Formats: sequence, C-alpha cells, structure tokens
Amino acid sequence: MSKKVAIIMGSDSDLPVVIDAAKELKKFGVEYEIHVMSAHRTPDQAAEFSKNAVKNGFSVIIAAAGMAAHLAGVLAAHTIIPVIGIPMESSRLDGMDALLATVQMPKGIPVATVAINGAANAALLALQMLALSDEKIAAQLTEMKAQMCKKVLDKDAKLQKSIDELIV
Amino acid sequence: MSKKVAIIMGSDSDLPVVIDAAKELKKFGVEYEIHVMSAHRTPDQAAEFSKNAVKNGFSVIIAAAGMAAHLAGVLAAHTIIPVIGIPMESSRLDGMDALLATVQMPKGIPVATVAINGAANAALLALQMLALSDEKIAAQLTEMKAQMCKKVLDKDAKLQKSIDELIV
Amino acid sequence: MSKKVAIIMGSDSDLPVVIDAAKELKKFGVEYEIHVMSAHRTPDQAAEFSKNAVKNGFSVIIAAAGMAAHLAGVLAAHTIIPVIGIPMESSRLDGMDALLATVQMPKGIPVATVAINGAANAALLALQMLALSDEKIAAQLTEMKAQMCKKVLDKDAKLQKSIDELIV
Amino acid sequence: MSKKVAIIMGSDSDLPVVIDAAKELKKFGVEYEIHVMSAHRTPDQAAEFSKNAVKNGFSVIIAAAGMAAHLAGVLAAHTIIPVIGIPMESSRLDGMDALLATVQMPKGIPVATVAINGAANAALLALQMLALSDEKIAAQLTEMKAQMCKKVLDKDAKLQKSIDELIV
Amino acid sequence: MSKKVAIIMGSDSDLPVVIDAAKELKKFGVEYEIHVMSAHRTPDQAAEFSKNAVKNGFSVIIAAAGMAAHLAGVLAAHTIIPVIGIPMESSRLDGMDALLATVQMPKGIPVATVAINGAANAALLALQMLALSDEKIAAQLTEMKAQMCKKVLDKDAKLQKSIDELIV
Amino acid sequence: MSKKVAIIMGSDSDLPVVIDAAKELKKFGVEYEIHVMSAHRTPDQAAEFSKNAVKNGFSVIIAAAGMAAHLAGVLAAHTIIPVIGIPMESSRLDGMDALLATVQMPKGIPVATVAINGAANAALLALQMLALSDEKIAAQLTEMKAQMCKKVLDKDAKLQKSIDELIV
Amino acid sequence: MSKKVAIIMGSDSDLPVVIDAAKELKKFGVEYEIHVMSAHRTPDQAAEFSKNAVKNGFSVIIAAAGMAAHLAGVLAAHTIIPVIGIPMESSRLDGMDALLATVQMPKGIPVATVAINGAANAALLALQMLALSDEKIAAQLTEMKAQMCKKVLDKDAKLQKSIDELIV
Amino acid sequence: MSKKVAIIMGSDSDLPVVIDAAKELKKFGVEYEIHVMSAHRTPDQAAEFSKNAVKNGFSVIIAAAGMAAHLAGVLAAHTIIPVIGIPMESSRLDGMDALLATVQMPKGIPVATVAINGAANAALLALQMLALSDEKIAAQLTEMKAQMCKKVLDKDAKLQKSIDELIV
Repeated sequence: MSKKVAIIMGSDSDLPVVIDAAKELKKFGVEYEIHVMSAHRTPDQAAEFSKNAVKNGFSVIIAAAGMAAHLAGVLAAHTIIPVIGIPMESSRLDGMDALLATVQMPKGIPVATVAINGAANAALLALQMLALSDEKIAAQLTEMKAQMCKKVLDKDAKLQKSIDELIV
Repeated sequence: MSKKVAIIMGSDSDLPVVIDAAKELKKFGVEYEIHVMSAHRTPDQAAEFSKNAVKNGFSVIIAAAGMAAHLAGVLAAHTIIPVIGIPMESSRLDGMDALLATVQMPKGIPVATVAINGAANAALLALQMLALSDEKIAAQLTEMKAQMCKKVLDKDAKLQKSIDELIV
Repeated sequence: MSKKVAIIMGSDSDLPVVIDAAKELKKFGVEYEIHVMSAHRTPDQAAEFSKNAVKNGFSVIIAAAGMAAHLAGVLAAHTIIPVIGIPMESSRLDGMDALLATVQMPKGIPVATVAINGAANAALLALQMLALSDEKIAAQLTEMKAQMCKKVLDKDAKLQKSIDELIV
Repeated sequence: MSKKVAIIMGSDSDLPVVIDAAKELKKFGVEYEIHVMSAHRTPDQAAEFSKNAVKNGFSVIIAAAGMAAHLAGVLAAHTIIPVIGIPMESSRLDGMDALLATVQMPKGIPVATVAINGAANAALLALQMLALSDEKIAAQLTEMKAQMCKKVLDKDAKLQKSIDELIV
Repeated sequence: MSKKVAIIMGSDSDLPVVIDAAKELKKFGVEYEIHVMSAHRTPDQAAEFSKNAVKNGFSVIIAAAGMAAHLAGVLAAHTIIPVIGIPMESSRLDGMDALLATVQMPKGIPVATVAINGAANAALLALQMLALSDEKIAAQLTEMKAQMCKKVLDKDAKLQKSIDELIV
Repeated sequence: MSKKVAIIMGSDSDLPVVIDAAKELKKFGVEYEIHVMSAHRTPDQAAEFSKNAVKNGFSVIIAAAGMAAHLAGVLAAHTIIPVIGIPMESSRLDGMDALLATVQMPKGIPVATVAINGAANAALLALQMLALSDEKIAAQLTEMKAQMCKKVLDKDAKLQKSIDELIV
Repeated sequence: MSKKVAIIMGSDSDLPVVIDAAKELKKFGVEYEIHVMSAHRTPDQAAEFSKNAVKNGFSVIIAAAGMAAHLAGVLAAHTIIPVIGIPMESSRLDGMDALLATVQMPKGIPVATVAINGAANAALLALQMLALSDEKIAAQLTEMKAQMCKKVLDKDAKLQKSIDELIV
Repeated sequence: MSKKVAIIMGSDSDLPVVIDAAKELKKFGVEYEIHVMSAHRTPDQAAEFSKNAVKNGFSVIIAAAGMAAHLAGVLAAHTIIPVIGIPMESSRLDGMDALLATVQMPKGIPVATVAINGAANAALLALQMLALSDEKIAAQLTEMKAQMCKKVLDKDAKLQKSIDELIV
C-alpha cells in the first residue's frame, strides 16, 4: 500500500492551522495532498474522495473542521482507512462544539481525534500508522522523540543559567 | 408541493422518543414516513434519500441523532427543503454533544434545531412550515394553541382546589 | 400567504451580526422588516407584533437575542408561524447561555434554532420555508447551493496551485 | 403594601419541588397564592398576572421554570416588584439551561435567581424582602437562623457520640 | 427601617464594573456605601460588617466577587437582610465559576443572584426591594420602566429610517 | 511487524466496557493482550510495558482510563506506535474529565482518542491501522462495513412493517 | 507541632463519603476529629474553629462541602495551616459547582483541592504533609504505595487467568 | 527534612505565570529549584526527578502544566511528598481541560490542586506545608496574612476618599 496522506479541511480559513500537518509530513518525506472539501457544501465530492481514497493511493485521511464538525465522520463513513479528526477552534465555543462533533462517533465508525487545532499531532499520528509497515518512518519517529526530549533538557539547562536574573 | 414529512432517525433505539413526532403528525392528518438511516452506516442511502426527497413528495425532513449527531447536517447538505434536527440524549454527555453537533452548522446549510429529545416540537415546527401554505393546518395549529392554553388554566383551577390539602 | 419575513433583534447592538440575515433575504428579493424589540423592555409591543404577524403579512419571524435570550420564545408563544431563533454571542459565556435559552423550548412551542450568531443561516432557513410554496425561491436556493459547491471547488483548485509555496 | 407572595410555576410537574416554597411561607404565616402559568402556553395570562400583581396585593413573585426558563423574565418584564427565579432541573442538562435562562437577564430587568430547585430559599428570600418593613417577619427570620445554627451544632454533638462506632 | 444599600466588592479591581450599581442608586437618590472587603483576606471585618448591617442602617447588601466567589454567601450567613450577589468575570472561566459559587447556596441562606457582571441589575433589584415600602422609589421604577420601553421604541424608529442605507 | 494489539485499562472495574475491544479483535482473528496497569499506581510497569511494546510484538496500544485519565498519554510518551485512548465514564462528570485529559495532548505526543466508553471503536481503529499492511483485515473491514449498512437497512425494512401498530 | 487532623463537613449528609478520610487516617494511626460545621449556618463556630485550630493541636484541616462550597475557603481565611478541600457531589451539577467554588481561590488563600468526592485522597494528602516531619508516616506511605502497586499487579495476574473465559 | 521546593513546569512558555511561585518562595527565604520537564517529552527524566526528590532534599513539588495536564499526576505517582498542581490556561478551553486533568486524580495518588494559573497560591500552599515543622515560616505566614488584611482595609479607606469623584 502507498504511503500518501490526505489532508482535508472544511474551509480554506483553516489553512493557517492545518498547514502544520503538511509541514510535519514534508519533514518526514511522506507524500500528501491537501484539499478544501466540505461535508455540507461539497458532500458528493467529499464522499467520492473518501470512496476512492484507497484506489488513489491514500493510506490515511486527516480531516479538519470546526463548529458542527461533520467532515471527519462523513469521510470515515465511506472508507476503511483510518480517519484522523482535528476539531478546529473556528467557532464561538472555544472548539468544544467541534471536539464533541468529531470524537463522539457511534459504534462502527471511529474517528481518531486529536486535540483542538492539533494539526501537527494529526500528522504525527498518521506517521505512526505508516511506520507500522515502514521502518524508515519508524526510525525517524524515534529520532524525533529523542530530539524532542533533548530540546526540553536544553531549555531546562538554559533556564538554570538565567533563573537568578529572572526572579528578583 | 406535497405535504409529506420524512422522519429519519440514526438508530432504531431512538424510536421511543422519535415516535412522538409521528404521533403529532398523525393527529394533524399529515402524511409522513419514518425511517432508520445512518449518516455513518448508510451514508449513500442517506444522501440518496435527501437528494430525492422533493421528487418523492417530501416537504420537510426531521432528523434525530445522538452523540456526534451528523445526520441532520448530512441530509441538509443534499436538499433545499427545511431539515429539522432533534439532538438525541443517547450519549453520555446529557445530549450536549448531539446539541452542538446539530445546531452549530456552518453558513449556507442551516439545520432548524429543537430541544434535546424534542420530537413533538420537531413535528410542530414541520407543521408550522406546512401551514404557511395550508390553511387547514394553520387552523389546527391555532386550535391546538388554544387547547394548550386551556389545559394550563384547567390545571391551575384544579390546583386551587387541592392546594390546602397539599401544604401541611 | 405573503412572503414577508420579520427580523427582530433584542438590542440595536445586535445589528452588525443580524444584518447578514437582511442581506441574504435581499439577495433573494424577499421582502422583510427589521425591528429592535425586547422581550423584557417592550414586552407588550413584542406580544402585539407577534399576535399581528400573520395579519401584517409575515410568514416567518427571525428573532435574535443574547444572554437569557427569551425573545424567540416569547414571540413563538403568540403566533403559529415559524419562529427562527439566533442565539447572540453578546454575553460573557460565549453565547452558550443564549443557545440554551433559545433551543430548550418546552413541548408545544418550538423555536427553530440556528448556530450562535448564525444570522445568514436564519435567513436561509426562512427562505427554505418560503420555498415550500414558491418555486422561484426554490430555484434560487438550488442555484445558491450549486454556487456554494463551486466556490469550494474553486478554492481547492486555487489551493493546489499555491500549495508548494505555502509549505516550506 | 400587602405582604402576599405569588408562587408561579411553569408546569404542574414542578409542584413537588415548588411546594417547599409554599411550606416555608406558611410557617412564617405569610399569605401566598400558588399558580400554574406558562410563559409560552399562557403568555397573556402570565403578562396580565404580572401587570396586576401590585393591584392584587402581591409584594413578591416567585417563578419556577425549567429548560429554556423564560417565566421569571417574562413576569419581571411587566412589574416593578421583585421577581425571584427558581431554575428547575426538569430538563436533560441538570438544570444548567434553566439556570442560565433565568439568571443572565439583560440590564434593566433583574431576576433574583436562587439555586437550581432552590424553592425553600426562594421563599426565604421573599421573606427577607418582606422583613424590610415587617418587624415580625424579621424576628422570625432571626429566630430561624438561630435554630438552623443550633440544629447543626446538635448534629455535630450527636456525631461525636456515634463516631467511634462508625469508623471501623 | 432606613433605605441605605451596602455595596461590597471583593477586590478594588472590581470597581469599574461595580460602580454601575452605585450610579444606579445615586440616580434614584438612595443612600449607599461602597466598600472593598474580602471573604478571605478580611473575613472578620466582613462578618462584623454583615452582623452590624441592620444596626448601621442598611436594608440590602450587594456583594460582588469573582472566581470562588464566597463573599455574598459569607455576608448572607451573618444577616437576615437580603444579600444580592454579582458574579464577577474576573477569573479565567468567563465568570462561570463565580456564578456557580454565588447562586448554588444551600437551603437556609439564599443569595439573590444576578447575571455575571450585572451590577446595574443588582442595584435595580435592591431598589425593587426598597420600593416595597417606599412609594417614591416605586414611582421612580415605574417611570424608569416606561423610559426603557420608550428608548427601545425610539431606537426602532431610528433604525427604520437608516435601514435602506445599511443593507446594500 | 507483528499484528498484536495491547489493551491496557487503568482499573479492573473498566473491564465490562473495555471487553468490547477484545471481542472486536477476536472477531477479526487479531491477537491481543489485555492488562490492568495504572499510570499512577504502577507507573514503572506502565513505562516499561510501553518501552518494550515494539520488542514484544505489539503494533498498537489501546488505553482506557477515567477521571484525570493520564494512562494513554503516559504510554504514548514511551513509544512510537500509535496509542488509542478510550476516555472512561468512571467519574462523576459524565466522562468529560477523562475526554479532555485524553484528547488534549501537547504537540509531539498524539493520542488517537475515541468517544467516551468507545471500546469497540478503539478496536476498529486499531484494525484500520493494521489493515494498512494487511489485506485480509482490510477485506474483513470492508465486509463489516457492508454488514453494518445491511443491518440498518434491514431494521428500516422491519420498521416499515410494524409502524402502523406503533403509532396509535 | 501535633499531628492531629480536623475533618469538617458542611452537612451530616456528607458523612457516607467523608468517612473514607477518617478511615484512612485511622489506618495510619493519626489522630483526627470529625465535625459537622457550616460556613453558612454556623459561620461563627466555623471561624472560631479555624482560628483556634493550631492552638487545639490541629496540623491540617480537611473540609468537605457541596454546591456553592464555601467551607474550605472560609476555614482557610482564618488559619495558616493547610486546608484541603473536597468538593462534594451533593448538588444537581455533578459536583462541578462545588469543584469550582473550592479550587478557584483568590491569591493569598490557597485551598488544596482534591477530586470530587475524593475523601480518601484528602486524607492521603494530609498524611503526606504530616510525613514531611514524621518518618513513621513517611514509611507507612511508602509501604502503602508499594501495596497499591502490588494490588494492581495481582489483579492483572488474576485477569490473565480468567481472560479466555471472559471473551467469547 | 530539608525545606527545598521543586517547581516543575511542562513547557518554558509557562514561565511568565509560574515565576510567581518562585518569587513567593524567595520572599519567604525558602530554597527552590525551577525546571522545565515534560510528562510526555521527557518522561524518564520526570520519573527520575520525582523518585529522587526526597533524596535530593525536596519537601514539596509544584507542577504546572496545561491542556491534558499529566505532569502533576505523573510526578505524584513516583513520590510520597506532596505534589501541588497548577492547571495552566495554555490551551483553548480556558484551562478547564488542565483543571480536570489535574484535580480528578484516582484514589491513592492525590494532587493538591490550586486555581487555574494560581502559581502564587501553589507556593503559599507549599509554605503552609513547610510551616508545619518550621516556626519561622509559620510566623511569616501569619504576618503575611495580617498584611494582606491591612492592604484591603487600606484600599477601602482610600476608596472612601475618592468615591465622590468616581460616581457622577
């Protein structure tokens, strides 16, 4: 199976947040496509895209939507590849509406939900799935985890030097 | 245009609540169909139903669903007739997830949302819409409103008689 | 029955949001009136307006209010034409108070609730109701839906061209 | 001014909770009336009642309602005597909808809101208001406060005796 | 009994909101005192103030506090005059914490709670209580209500003139 | 890579819900282990388990926990295989605490969160991940989806037969 | 300083939950007193108790209260010994009101808040504080932690034996 | 036992809030260390730190984290010294996610939770714990409490002078 990831967002206004998912995939050298597609405004195109996702070489779909966020669920209805949902903070309820509308899926149609606006984590989750059958990505993830750890330790080391000036 | 109302529920376990909508329509002598249909398990059938709703003589669609309640929104995506959403209390969050997933629709695709489990009101709302071009239904609604008022007044009258025994 | 829509807002400070409803109706060439009227400050006028709505040629009432948003419910109490409620975000609780105060109506008096600040959708919902007996509006709604779909597809096409520059 | 208190409930199903308010008033020997009256089903009667409340000898109105609880606000709109709101737990959201719909009143029309289902406190608040110009009620309230304190102290004393058996 | 109102706020940072209560009382020519006093930082002074409130000529206490807002409840514990609570929005939870901490009082100790930041309404509620035994204040409240109504009607009239320019 | 799935639950009281995940995996003939392990009571064992998960042949970890549900996050911290979180309803807040504690993971450490108590969906999500490199599971998922659809259609057909008796 | 712990509950109806704190202290051989005392019904006694807590040999106060839970805060206002708050689930909002009213304390007066109904944890927290200057308690806590871990491992071992019968 | 306090924050972006804890400790002359350490990015270091906390001379740990805030719980899992949790407002849900993820700890592993962003109170709580066996700190806390009270009284006195100019 190909390793391509689809990133679908419900509105082009989601791009500034969703772009982090694309950047993460690019860092790992994983192919992706990014599309604007709406569960409500382009329902047929969304259904078609999902039905043909496997045929078109996609392994994972990332879906980002706000408010009554149906996009991830609608895509999940038409495919058996994993669908990762990013609840967007675009509405007036801090993203709580999008979170509940994304995560509370009924039995049979799971959506792998990440944090509100959690685009980078959606990509990492997709990469973890791909890594199950791709040792190169697995090695990259292991390396990234080590770097992440090192970065925190570096910040702590740096903090120790500046702390006396900070607290007065 | 015909006056038929479609009542769609996401799961047959919603029937005990949703049946109130059917009963209300029956009282008014308005034709209806009631179906189990799922935005996630039968997405194509749901889309087809909605696309053909006008052709099949439906004027209004009532959609009841719980949890990440996408049903009303998905039906609304495919038709221009009014879609009324009933958020069902079936989940573990008192129906708050279904309420937000039903009412917070994006611009362009409204869902007329009623109270959690508000099946009777969904039917009355459908009847109010039909009454816009049907004087008989309008008259029935006027009569029902008068009855509703009378019933409260009767209850109050009855309460006045029993009140002394109640408060001791 | 006439096709006039009443847009009632609880405070003139709601105008910047509510005006979207008026604009939508104007696009469709549907007559409307827009009024400031308060369930609490002008209760008699609100009741009178609603009681005479049919006589004065209104088919649908759109009511926008914030905080303990009683306006839609109060108007619905006095008429049998559909009342569409817009919960306004004017309070300190992100509009959650207005949403619950608008949508959780008791049996017998439905309010067709749309999203918080969802003024355009309130107008579209009113138009969908009018379209039940007006083929011209129905055709306009069908056309609008097609345009909406096309706009998303255009945005997606445009995104495909710029995507390589965006992700670096 | 008379000392009569009106207790209005939106539905006769509220009686088992609301009756506590009546009992409290009875204990203090304060006259009251208790009525079923709905902001939505009997809007004219509710408005009339409130407009005539002073003329009919009422000093305070207690209003109990659930869900989108408009009753207290609607009564407050028509009178200048204090309106005390009891948010009822009758809905599916633990009474949170009724609380917000009762307390979040706009500037100019306050509702003195007590706890969800807080019927006894509503009566005590009414009594506190009446006590402002009635020394007898004031003395009764002072005595009740002393009794309340004594009862807690008695319970504590009793607990001290049984504690060793309780904790094993 | 005197007609003096005490306005107590938990922090001087609440002044910009709470001052509206003082202004409202001033308009009505009702005497008031305004104090900073904390349930947690000056508990003895708060208790003393409340215990002596009647002796010092106060008829009503307005208490404004944010976060875990105990001030109104603590004052209410020590007096039988009505205590009106204003939940302040000072915390990070939109004032929801202050609302619940103010309104959910246990049986026996009511706090008349108004909307989050509802300082003017707190004053109006106090005035409504005083008006029970003061015909002048009652007349002023009636006049204010009429003015409030007139203001809305004037705004509506003004809106009718400008509406055509607004909607383009 | 092996196809074994680990199901970890924070408390053995979670078993009645979590067992659905095991049953689902069994239906698909996928090997699994199920363990009680606590992020707080057996933190070292949990960390060790996660660190050795790949070595021990696990491809996916499902973690179920309630209240301040740290289990999924803690396991995710120590591995690069996907971790699926099931927020358990075991606490007094309807599972909302567990949902937020599971889904709101910081950048770098995603947890694929499913609905509150959504054990079956957690298993299906794991199966979807495994299916990315296992055509047999993919075929089983496709078949399951078809069955799910058929079941709804059958229920609808059955409903049509009984509907007249139901609505009286 | 003595090692005595005070357990104060706002109502004797809290006893079935709060007793777990006493049991935990008893297991550790730490002296305690348990009292019913109300921030609102016995405010003077509560203040006195807290002011004299150190003098009376108390090191830590545990305070359990529901609804607008002021008890912990009021006790904390009068002492410098740590006050641990248990938000009780006694109200109609799942204990969320008590949680916010307990934890959201203003700067200067902390309350160490544990989970809703978390009586055993309140006791353990008190024991952890006492252990800072008591090696015996520290050793007991270390032992308890080891036992807790062992118990989970035992449950897991037991589960492994029964698992095949459970999943059918 | 030493009196050193550890302040651990999940991200260096928390520093502007968390620094208040350090400042408070400095005022009291209590030694502290402040570290960036993540439950998810540096899980082994966090576990090690907590396991060695007593050996390294720490008496109390303050842990600040946002979103799915696992840090305090994870540290508490590995030590018997008190862990104080500061839920950080860093996420998109006003800190409610961090509050629930910090306070709702299961039986056996308490976290002493303070208000959202309540860094100063976390330090004061740590000082209260230390004061149990340190008369100097106890005296300082008593003095601080007196100063806090005086400051409020001063502000009130100042307010009385300016009040006439403020209310116009």
